Amino acid sequence: MTDADVTPDDVERASRRIEGLVRRTPVIDHGDLVLKLELLQHAGSFKPRGAANRVLAERDRGGHLPAAGVITASGGNHGAAVAYVSQAIGIAAEVFVPSMSPQIKRDNVARFGATLRVVDGYYDDAQVAADARQLESGALMVHPFDHADTVAGQGTMARELEDQIGGFDTIVVATGGGGFVAGQAAWLRDRARVVSVEPELSQSLRAALQAGRPVDVGVSGLGSDSMGAKRVGDAPWVMIRQFVDEAVVVSEDDLRAAQRELWQQFRLVAEPGGAAAFAAIRSGAYRPSPDERVVVVVCGSNCDPADVSMHPKGVSA
Amino acid sequence: MTDADVTPDDVERASRRIEGLVRRTPVIDHGDLVLKLELLQHAGSFKPRGAANRVLAERDRGGHLPAAGVITASGGNHGAAVAYVSQAIGIAAEVFVPSMSPQIKRDNVARFGATLRVVDGYYDDAQVAADARQLESGALMVHPFDHADTVAGQGTMARELEDQIGGFDTIVVATGGGGFVAGQAAWLRDRARVVSVEPELSQSLRAALQAGRPVDVGVSGLGSDSMGAKRVGDAPWVMIRQFVDEAVVVSEDDLRAAQRELWQQFRLVAEPGGAAAFAAIRSGAYRPSPDERVVVVVCGSNCDPADVSMHPKGVSA
Repeated sequence: MTDADVTPDDVERASRRIEGLVRRTPVIDHGDLVLKLELLQHAGSFKPRGAANRVLAERDRGGHLPAAGVITASGGNHGAAVAYVSQAIGIAAEVFVPSMSPQIKRDNVARFGATLRVVDGYYDDAQVAADARQLESGALMVHPFDHADTVAGQGTMARELEDQIGGFDTIVVATGGGGFVAGQAAWLRDRARVVSVEPELSQSLRAALQAGRPVDVGVSGLGSDSMGAKRVGDAPWVMIRQFVDEAVVVSEDDLRAAQRELWQQFRLVAEPGGAAAFAAIRSGAYRPSPDERVVVVVCGSNCDPADVSMHPKGVSA
Repeated sequence: MTDADVTPDDVERASRRIEGLVRRTPVIDHGDLVLKLELLQHAGSFKPRGAANRVLAERDRGGHLPAAGVITASGGNHGAAVAYVSQAIGIAAEVFVPSMSPQIKRDNVARFGATLRVVDGYYDDAQVAADARQLESGALMVHPFDHADTVAGQGTMARELEDQIGGFDTIVVATGGGGFVAGQAAWLRDRARVVSVEPELSQSLRAALQAGRPVDVGVSGLGSDSMGAKRVGDAPWVMIRQFVDEAVVVSEDDLRAAQRELWQQFRLVAEPGGAAAFAAIRSGAYRPSPDERVVVVVCGSNCDPADVSMHPKGVSA
């Protein structure tokens, strides 16, 4: 499955499959600059698109899902998305989160009724525990990015976007494990320039493009809870190597400045990863030409709104 | 001027006049419930629509504006809107704010380059000082709501909304001095039910409907910095008495709960006044019938995002 293209037909089918489970997220259209407000998606990020398609495509193929429902390891946006989708379609979900994940992210998983398992340690420890549990329960393991159905689900955003605003020259998106950018590439192909943005401290896509294949990288920094994949997935890579035109990086300061400006100018509360694409435009990491119509995807809002306050420490008067 | 109807033609003209100065704000369409995200407007509220039309209509009539530009008294959303509009069209603005207004609101005025005059005391003191200064400077006094041009400008939101989503049964909007609800009524007439929402502690519109004319009321509470007009304006009243179908009130607790839910469910940071219309639906103060298509306008975001944090005092882990 991982060597196969994700086709526009796959995205089209995904779109019909997940309709009603995902929000058609709004856009702010300033002509040359369009903001796609995917941070207003259910569960606070684009992730429900991919998770819903992964789960429902499995059901469609097999006729049913395991009685134990679904399982995943993620204290972040994917965990919340799996919990949201499971609650919406009425199946069980078990989500393993590392003890180092912030309370605010865990709350976001728990509020959708998933069974939350906190595992001592880091993400890898949570994954090991989830794998062991999956062997026992038989639940469907839902990976955050490395599956063609997940890539096709993420691509429904670009399809929706074209339906909303017609054509554009360039789309700029944040990259973690590559599922999101690959989905947009799968739908848009050569109709638009696809630009990936990563934080300086987590460059799995840029490293893969340089090496000509996915390779392991170190991850750290502000955006690492949402963009900190150690390696681009094989399924996304198939599309990335064909249709991603450019990969740029932004600094930690760029991310913070973008978060502040998204609040000041647009009244949007974005997490660092959600602000990364905007940071690339703001910092000049990606410089559009004068008449280029650019879509910037603001793709995640799972942070404490106090993080973007101009008046830190609650001093508001 | 205050006895004249604001006609759909007036709103149409306003719309052409202010194009480019205001954002076409996005909607989230859930079928029966539509959220109009007017809180993402420039300067963080719907106010630039009315302020821009007021100023530009004056210029169109007279051929020019006073050399001293515009002047107003408001530490709140209107002050920021006047500052924004003035900066955008390149005229001077002087904004008088009372010393009791919060720093965050003053910052919001100052960031658009207006001259900020802080006056000891409350809103009335700022108005007295602004009036005195206006006699001296000859600047155009821009009232926050009591002018037909301002009402027509606010009405451009309903026009834009119909263009975005087609027909609907009901629109629910927050009311302070009445300019905003009057504008929607001026455009929609009897095509949709127009519902006004006020906080329990500032009921100028409800009192006017009960008395059959604008009367003075006491104002206090959470939403009073944006909805705390002591009396509905005469210009708005002309439209309100004809086309506002229902006036409901919400409690302080309803406002806070609506702010929290707008963040949790929709990732929107709304100030208390901005959340009032949503509070009316959430609390049952307005109960739509099962097949009623209702637009809830979320109309202001000029608060500290920390106010809607689930983790007060900056404790996020």
